[in-house]
Amino acid sequence: MLRDNHSIKLLDEAVEAFSSLPGVGRKSALRLALHILNQPRESVDRFVKSISSLSKDIKYCPVCRMISDSGLCPFCGDKSRDSSIICVVESIRDVLSIENTSQYNGHYHILGGIISPMDGVGPNDLPIKELIDRIASGDVLEVVFALSTSMEGETTSFYLFKKLSQFPIKITTIARGVGFGDELEYTDELTLGRSILNRQLFKP
Amino acid sequence: MLRDNHSIKLLDEAVEAFSSLPGVGRKSALRLALHILNQPRESVDRFVKSISSLSKDIKYCPVCRMISDSGLCPFCGDKSRDSSIICVVESIRDVLSIENTSQYNGHYHILGGIISPMDGVGPNDLPIKELIDRIASGDVLEVVFALSTSMEGETTSFYLFKKLSQFPIKITTIARGVGFGDELEYTDELTLGRSILNRQLFKP
Repeated sequence: MLRDNHSIKLLDEAVEAFSSLPGVGRKSALRLALHILNQPRESVDRFVKSISSLSKDIKYCPVCRMISDSGLCPFCGDKSRDSSIICVVESIRDVLSIENTSQYNGHYHILGGIISPMDGVGPNDLPIKELIDRIASGDVLEVVFALSTSMEGETTSFYLFKKLSQFPIKITTIARGVGFGDELEYTDELTLGRSILNRQLFKP
Repeated sequence: MLRDNHSIKLLDEAVEAFSSLPGVGRKSALRLALHILNQPRESVDRFVKSISSLSKDIKYCPVCRMISDSGLCPFCGDKSRDSSIICVVESIRDVLSIENTSQYNGHYHILGGIISPMDGVGPNDLPIKELIDRIASGDVLEVVFALSTSMEGETTSFYLFKKLSQFPIKITTIARGVGFGDELEYTDELTLGRSILNRQLFKP
C-alpha cells in the first residue's frame, strides 16, 4: 500500500490478514481493511467474534465427524433421517453440497481427506476404522461412496470397498455421467464413455 | 447453507459475518468460513487480532485526519515532505491512491466526506475550519483539490475555493485526466499521476 517509510503498521497487518484468505488479492484485502475502518467498533467486534467462535467453539460429531454446535451433528441427531444408509464423503463442504440437492436423507461419514501416497496420507490417517465400527454395529444396510473421480478418490473408494465387502451390505457409488445442461461435445471422453457403459433404461 | 432443522449456528454466524464484507457473496462467505475451520487456532487468532486492532487501536492524525499508528501520520511526520502544499481529498483510500503514483510529495487534508445535501452532509460536517486554520498558520503556499468530478465533488471544490480565496495562496485542482464520473480509487496510476503533475489553477 504505502512505501516503507510511510507505512501504517495496523493497516498493513489487517491487509496481510485479509490477503491470507483464499481468493482475496491485495487490492481486495485493502478494500476490506478500509471497510473495517468505516464500521462501528461493535460491528467489528461481532464480526471478529463470529470467526473466532467458529474456530474455537466448533465441535465435531463423534459419529460422522461433521461439524456441530455441540454433541451429535444435526444429521446424526435427527431421528427422521434414515440411519441405515451412510454416505462417505471427503469433506464438510461435500455434505453441504449434497444437502443442497434435497435428494438424500441418510447419514454421513466424513473422511476429512482421501488416500494419497503423494501427500503422505494413508488409510490409517483417515477414520476408516470408525466407519467399519459403525457398520459392524449392525444397523447399516447401504454405504454410498461420494468421493471424487480423481486417482486418489478412486483408490480410496476401492480400498473402502475391499474393507467393507466382509459385511452383508449394499455398496454403491454416486452415478457418473454427463451433467444436466452439459453439451456432449464438451464432455471429457472418460465421463462420456462411462455414461454410455452405465446407460439406463429410458423412463419417459 | 443448511435448512433450518439442520443448521449449524456457529457456521451460519461466521458465514453471515463474511457475507457482510463488501463484494463477498454467500458462496464465497461459506468458502471463507470453511477455510477458517481448516486453519490452526493460532493463525485464526492472529487473523482476528489484526482486524480487531485495526478497528480498536488505529489513531487519526490531528493535523490531516489520515490514519496512523500513533500521533502524527507518516506524511505530516515526514520532514522530507513539502509542508507548503496541501492536497485535499475525500478519503483515506484517495491518499493511498495518490501515494501509489509517486508523483506527490506534499501534505494532505482528508475531508472524510464531501458536501452532499442529499445525504445531509453540509460544510459544517467536514473539517473545513481545520483546513482554514492550517492555511492561516502561514506556511502553506498551495492547496490542491483532488476531489471526485461528481456534482458533490464540484460543489465541495467550489465551496472550498470561496473559503480559501481570502488567502494569498495558489489554489489548484488535479487535471481533468480523470474521466468524468470515474472514482479516484479506480483510476489507473498513470492517469492519476499525470493529473496531479498537470494540476491547473482553479477557475470557477
